[in-house]
Amino acid sequence: MEALKLAGREEPSQHTIVKINSPKGPVLIGEGHCTIIAGPCAVENRDDYLMIAKALQEMGVHILRGGAFKPRTSPYSFMGLGLEGLKILAEARELTGLPVVTEVMDTRDIDLICNYADILQVGSRNMQNFRLLQEVGQIEKPVILKRGLSSTIEEWLLAAEYILSSGNQKLILCERGIRTFENYTRNTVDIGAVSVIKSLSHLPVIVDPSHATGRWEIVKPVAKAAVVAGADGLMVEVHPYPERALSDGKQSLTPNNFSRLWAEVKKLADVEGKRY
Amino acid sequence: MEALKLAGREEPSQHTIVKINSPKGPVLIGEGHCTIIAGPCAVENRDDYLMIAKALQEMGVHILRGGAFKPRTSPYSFMGLGLEGLKILAEARELTGLPVVTEVMDTRDIDLICNYADILQVGSRNMQNFRLLQEVGQIEKPVILKRGLSSTIEEWLLAAEYILSSGNQKLILCERGIRTFENYTRNTVDIGAVSVIKSLSHLPVIVDPSHATGRWEIVKPVAKAAVVAGADGLMVEVHPYPERALSDGKQSLTPNNFSRLWAEVKKLADVEGKRY
Amino acid sequence: MEALKLAGREEPSQHTIVKINSPKGPVLIGEGHCTIIAGPCAVENRDDYLMIAKALQEMGVHILRGGAFKPRTSPYSFMGLGLEGLKILAEARELTGLPVVTEVMDTRDIDLICNYADILQVGSRNMQNFRLLQEVGQIEKPVILKRGLSSTIEEWLLAAEYILSSGNQKLILCERGIRTFENYTRNTVDIGAVSVIKSLSHLPVIVDPSHATGRWEIVKPVAKAAVVAGADGLMVEVHPYPERALSDGKQSLTPNNFSRLWAEVKKLADVEGKRY
Amino acid sequence: MEALKLAGREEPSQHTIVKINSPKGPVLIGEGHCTIIAGPCAVENRDDYLMIAKALQEMGVHILRGGAFKPRTSPYSFMGLGLEGLKILAEARELTGLPVVTEVMDTRDIDLICNYADILQVGSRNMQNFRLLQEVGQIEKPVILKRGLSSTIEEWLLAAEYILSSGNQKLILCERGIRTFENYTRNTVDIGAVSVIKSLSHLPVIVDPSHATGRWEIVKPVAKAAVVAGADGLMVEVHPYPERALSDGKQSLTPNNFSRLWAEVKKLADVEGKRY
Repeated sequence: MEALKLAGREEPSQHTIVKINSPKGPVLIGEGHCTIIAGPCAVENRDDYLMIAKALQEMGVHILRGGAFKPRTSPYSFMGLGLEGLKILAEARELTGLPVVTEVMDTRDIDLICNYADILQVGSRNMQNFRLLQEVGQIEKPVILKRGLSSTIEEWLLAAEYILSSGNQKLILCERGIRTFENYTRNTVDIGAVSVIKSLSHLPVIVDPSHATGRWEIVKPVAKAAVVAGADGLMVEVHPYPERALSDGKQSLTPNNFSRLWAEVKKLADVEGKRY
Repeated sequence: MEALKLAGREEPSQHTIVKINSPKGPVLIGEGHCTIIAGPCAVENRDDYLMIAKALQEMGVHILRGGAFKPRTSPYSFMGLGLEGLKILAEARELTGLPVVTEVMDTRDIDLICNYADILQVGSRNMQNFRLLQEVGQIEKPVILKRGLSSTIEEWLLAAEYILSSGNQKLILCERGIRTFENYTRNTVDIGAVSVIKSLSHLPVIVDPSHATGRWEIVKPVAKAAVVAGADGLMVEVHPYPERALSDGKQSLTPNNFSRLWAEVKKLADVEGKRY
Repeated sequence: MEALKLAGREEPSQHTIVKINSPKGPVLIGEGHCTIIAGPCAVENRDDYLMIAKALQEMGVHILRGGAFKPRTSPYSFMGLGLEGLKILAEARELTGLPVVTEVMDTRDIDLICNYADILQVGSRNMQNFRLLQEVGQIEKPVILKRGLSSTIEEWLLAAEYILSSGNQKLILCERGIRTFENYTRNTVDIGAVSVIKSLSHLPVIVDPSHATGRWEIVKPVAKAAVVAGADGLMVEVHPYPERALSDGKQSLTPNNFSRLWAEVKKLADVEGKRY
Repeated sequence: MEALKLAGREEPSQHTIVKINSPKGPVLIGEGHCTIIAGPCAVENRDDYLMIAKALQEMGVHILRGGAFKPRTSPYSFMGLGLEGLKILAEARELTGLPVVTEVMDTRDIDLICNYADILQVGSRNMQNFRLLQEVGQIEKPVILKRGLSSTIEEWLLAAEYILSSGNQKLILCERGIRTFENYTRNTVDIGAVSVIKSLSHLPVIVDPSHATGRWEIVKPVAKAAVVAGADGLMVEVHPYPERALSDGKQSLTPNNFSRLWAEVKKLADVEGKRY
């Protein structure tokens, strides 16, 4: 593995805890915490988003997610509401007091998104969009860097190095499944990578069991596995009506199923001594 | 997925619990249990094996493992002690009262191995050695069927179908990592496959975190993840002196490290309501 | 790469040419030749096999293929005619004067198959069935060793080393596609591996474009690519009526399509200075 | 496979031939042609680049390549000369009369690069940088779209659909190897994908054997394979002094080795009836 100047850690006790500002006070992600990010894949309309946001806040979720600019394999798919989606996210933020995270796909959108969101996410397909990494490396807000679909752990940490070396230390890594020959599940979550990252780096790492599996019925066991394997949090897709979601419906939990997941995760977080 | 005549389950509550006979009484593997198989990769000599067997029994391990016939990538590597190894296994069985499992690689060895071992293991490289599957399908003893290095879940269940349709219902599946592009770890454990198998099949499934990772320092988090993801047990490599093991030393735990793993696994098994 | 004691070559000009005996005189496989093996996946019945064998002989094919013992993913699929299939192969051999190759799956079948076939094939699923490798390493007849579905070049050459170190030097390697994430084709032919093998080893290497692609319409371009990339021959599935083949119909050529492939391959063999 | 509105073809005879303007007259890429793009990975300095450009022109190369903005895994690697590199490319274009191709990594650079280059390349890491695809879909100049490291054929064609549906029909696809478990070579060239693309789409497809293999000694056989498998051209890395290249030296040919490759490729293009 290539030397890591900034993403590596100097001693086992070195851990970065990322602090996210929000109306209700700071939310922390990092060692010793079990921070939950939840919400639908995309912001689809105001009413549904505000309803699910409120429900998630009441269940104790720490951060809301929702895509306004969606990367889609086909140019003919729903691509998100754009600015309108950002405004709905901001409204949900006011309503719930929770910070919001949304994806950025283009260097030209960074300023706009920073006006509305608390955390910027760089998605899997852009993990090696190096210009985008350099630009989000120059903002004040925290960044979630998802692992590329076929990126090695080394490439992922070097992508992190791009952001860190550009000046932004508020960086969170997110394992979200890698592409393998197995296609009963959408991707294969690399559960070992979580502890590898924790041993090599001081950065927080969370897991997205929804994209990793692509099947809602497997989200709960994978989420639980992530927490005891060392993850500092989870990012879970929750949709009020998965069957009519405009994207990723098959991997979205209903609020009820999410509630069951969260209850079981909390028991494991207790055993592991993680706060939530 | 092709229809599973025998490996599939008819209702969610259908679970096969495999009973393994041993001097000290039966050991169970299946839903509701957390059964631990441990031992060195290979039986290397009598003294070391008896010592580690005794230590593992005292720590509460349920089943001993140890290879007498070893599949090795190179014809010039240590291939196991053969019959002598089987005899040492049988001696450890007498000493500890625990059942022993060892690998079978050739149809011609089945009778011999059945004289000494309580469980026969079909290794990854032989998951589609269909003649071997048919033959172990005709014995009375339980079989552990490891997933092939690049086998899909469907192929694995169809390999199970070979054994079941030959008459042997005492079958345990073992996820041991699949081959992907990532090579910081030896293989990538497919943690989602554990719950997929549990949802599709009535068969017990265990996880081998040692081969899955190839690095002893990642064995513990992956073992813990397996238990909460639904695995009915673990198969862990433990060696008294990993640094001088004749095979797989890098992925073997010392007895002390295994003891720590087992203590943490027990806490999780308690949360999950699994007996051990 | 681990040191190759027997499969490696000492100087670039070292090439093994394998000589196959047959009623019509020896057939050669190795550097400077373009040897064609063709026939259906499995021997399905006497009439069809003798008809296709005769047609292939008239087109100038050098060696006939046909499975009598078929490895099948499901235990409920057609598994070949066994001994009856071997007898049909032997009859085709008498009829055409061409040598025949068929697969061996079990150490216990080797003697039987040697009574009927001129070349024994070890299939992909058995590339690391080390006992089988050792046993075919002790026969007089040539062996074709197919690359495992997810075997590295190094593992493949070490499997060859098993056969060579057991005494059999009449060994031919066969690239037949590897398993990747792409599944528009059945497998992904590793065309670069052909020249890697030719640079590292003195052994002949052929390509099976039928299993590599799983789609008959792509067999011709891949076959042509193999010849100019350095392959010493091809193994192609040809069936009189692909639409009613009991196995691999989708990847089988009709005799007419095979004839077109062979005509184009010959032109390229001429450019490359390969005999046929 | 998802329906292709614009990248698919309506009948087998439908082929797009892309015309590239240059000082010496148009260069064509598409069915019936064998168009060669060559040059070093990156433009490293003026003298070396002009020297190699001149040498390549004299050997009959049709298009020059050279990176000014280089995507690099580590932020500490050489990233190209930027604008200075573009100016050197333009000078080479004047000197040789050949069109030049260079990579674009950021939507904000498109206008600048269009001032200097004749073809814009979207690299593997950006194959699903959808904003970039939409933007290069709105320029007048031809675009080369490289296949992503782990992109399926379907995803690649849908990425092409982004460019086509944005208005730019001058599109060339480039197979450059996919990521697999095999790492003796840098990537595994998917030779079957070339004919799959030719059968599904009217778009030209070329092959980059340099990135596909990562080893100069395997570039020639893979280049030859590509031409007979249906590729409409090649993109080959050639460097005057590979051993001191700032990037990709191990996969670069010397001018002498390239000359040998080109001579052999021409013979095959003759057999295939391709102009060059």
